[in-house]
Amino acid sequence: MATILILGSGVMGSALAVPASDNGHRVLLAGTHLDGEAIRRMKQPGGVHPKLDEPLATSVEILAHDEVAPEHAEAADLIVVGVSSPGVSWAVERLNALMRHQRPVAFVTKGLDRRGDAVTTYAETLPGQVPHMSAFIGIGGPCIARELANRFPTTSIYASRDREAAAFARSLMQAPYYRLATGTDLTGVEACAALKNFFAIGVSAMQTRYPDTRRAGGQSKNPTAAAFNQAVREMAALCERLGGQRETAFDVAGIGDLHVTVGGGRNSRLGHFLGVGRTISDIMAKELVGETVEGIDTARVLAALFPHGRGEAALDRDRFPLTLAILDAVLSDAPLGFDLERLVFA
Amino acid sequence: MATILILGSGVMGSALAVPASDNGHRVLLAGTHLDGEAIRRMKQPGGVHPKLDEPLATSVEILAHDEVAPEHAEAADLIVVGVSSPGVSWAVERLNALMRHQRPVAFVTKGLDRRGDAVTTYAETLPGQVPHMSAFIGIGGPCIARELANRFPTTSIYASRDREAAAFARSLMQAPYYRLATGTDLTGVEACAALKNFFAIGVSAMQTRYPDTRRAGGQSKNPTAAAFNQAVREMAALCERLGGQRETAFDVAGIGDLHVTVGGGRNSRLGHFLGVGRTISDIMAKELVGETVEGIDTARVLAALFPHGRGEAALDRDRFPLTLAILDAVLSDAPLGFDLERLVFA
Repeated sequence: MATILILGSGVMGSALAVPASDNGHRVLLAGTHLDGEAIRRMKQPGGVHPKLDEPLATSVEILAHDEVAPEHAEAADLIVVGVSSPGVSWAVERLNALMRHQRPVAFVTKGLDRRGDAVTTYAETLPGQVPHMSAFIGIGGPCIARELANRFPTTSIYASRDREAAAFARSLMQAPYYRLATGTDLTGVEACAALKNFFAIGVSAMQTRYPDTRRAGGQSKNPTAAAFNQAVREMAALCERLGGQRETAFDVAGIGDLHVTVGGGRNSRLGHFLGVGRTISDIMAKELVGETVEGIDTARVLAALFPHGRGEAALDRDRFPLTLAILDAVLSDAPLGFDLERLVFA
Repeated sequence: MATILILGSGVMGSALAVPASDNGHRVLLAGTHLDGEAIRRMKQPGGVHPKLDEPLATSVEILAHDEVAPEHAEAADLIVVGVSSPGVSWAVERLNALMRHQRPVAFVTKGLDRRGDAVTTYAETLPGQVPHMSAFIGIGGPCIARELANRFPTTSIYASRDREAAAFARSLMQAPYYRLATGTDLTGVEACAALKNFFAIGVSAMQTRYPDTRRAGGQSKNPTAAAFNQAVREMAALCERLGGQRETAFDVAGIGDLHVTVGGGRNSRLGHFLGVGRTISDIMAKELVGETVEGIDTARVLAALFPHGRGEAALDRDRFPLTLAILDAVLSDAPLGFDLERLVFA
């Protein structure tokens, strides 16, 4: 039996407690300062996380923000950070306050980061900020947290430059319904995990953009399949540009996660509204008011890869028609201008 | 202006007449002996193909089976074969009866073939059977014919070992709503075009297998995304085994076409019934009685790659859990036994 400390009791952090506790480990699920309500509910007998359907195993120890102490980190064989990208600075600060010895840390947090002028991933920027992190493990793949918590068959990848650390994390977390790949292309997994939110906006837009009014389904399929394919093409190229391997985009962290992200969630909902000609400011002021849409944040960082008028530094714009159309919709608040006629095939 | 002879007035052959005639070419659309009803209807003023929604351009010349003559092939700059796999022998016979001079021939026909004990593609078996075929062009990609005929944005790939022949065919067929890649991995495109029908059965089964009764959508997403990803993995490996390139599975002929095929059609319908525990013989005797399901035919050929008890010749079975589960359902008429727990990740 191992001890696993999960920092962040949002829906993904809490869901990861399910395979961890099913595997017989001691699980400490610690809320952030924003998780008060979820923690309060889960601490009640039979209490359920507000976004999950079932109580966690009674063996899971629920800790409020102010109850987490260095001894919990000390006891942990693995620390899992379950916050979303706006919480990453909080997580770094918290890890440094709690950790006194080297421990491997696995992140579900997804996003791109900046280092000076460069666009990069957390794989590059976080390790230097957390001196006691013995290994950075990135978790990617097609995983709707609520479905994992309900033990629906789910796949993911645990990637680390430290091959043994990834294998160790997998050995703790893999369950019959939670099948895990490991890999060493951490940068690629982190890049794809962020990019899939961004591309899901564009692919989902195609699901509403070309209604097929003559058939019962009501939506055409060819444009969405073309856009899905184009998203994978561009994701592979951007993954490589960010220092990852193309092949990573063609596996669970890329294709798989894009598939599930287009299937539902906030990025997909935003895309559906964009597809009917709405603008992002309008959608964010109405249907998605107050929501975090991570693909938008990714777009704002990604834009630096496509500077106007800086020939050498810029990527070949012809290869990225979908990327550029989404960027334009986010940065200029324009209706989504993606048209397959822009595709320039090799 | 060029002349394009389309052999086979099924839904795909007829749909290809739309971009061809929109581009101003002379289009001859010739029925097979099985296309009598479609030809009769399309010959009427304003007549519509039974499976399409709109009449073709009046400039398209509709020819019944017994009206097609060698002078039509002679006049053609490009011949397109639009039959499905059961019609491929007919097409070979017809091409040889009609062609007196070298002409490029593009095939939408999808299937695997046998050469002795080996499993192979039409790219290997057809050229030798049609001496006047100057180039074999394989057409793949995510294209529901009716949507192409309605000018929904659609992508495809035209592949040929003769690079110029592929480029020539593209120059005739590409339209604003029909965006074409070209490529030289003909074998890979042919392999993926056949395999996607087969894998669509398994992926679609996951769309019904794990109902998510607590949510409005009613179906879980993680298992389908995992199966889609696994299908692409196994398709890439099989594509390579059949002599194609892995990368071909990661583009329009693979990912793109699998996406659209899971979205609808007979292979997908079969999969949905399989997913709830039915057997293929039962489904084919009821809901799909009298229908051709190409993924089943592909399975029967593909089985030869997985001989029992022949160690050296056989592929590593651990890498193909989805393939083997579909094969078992088809060949043994068993309920689909695919479980993600079988996944053995590298």
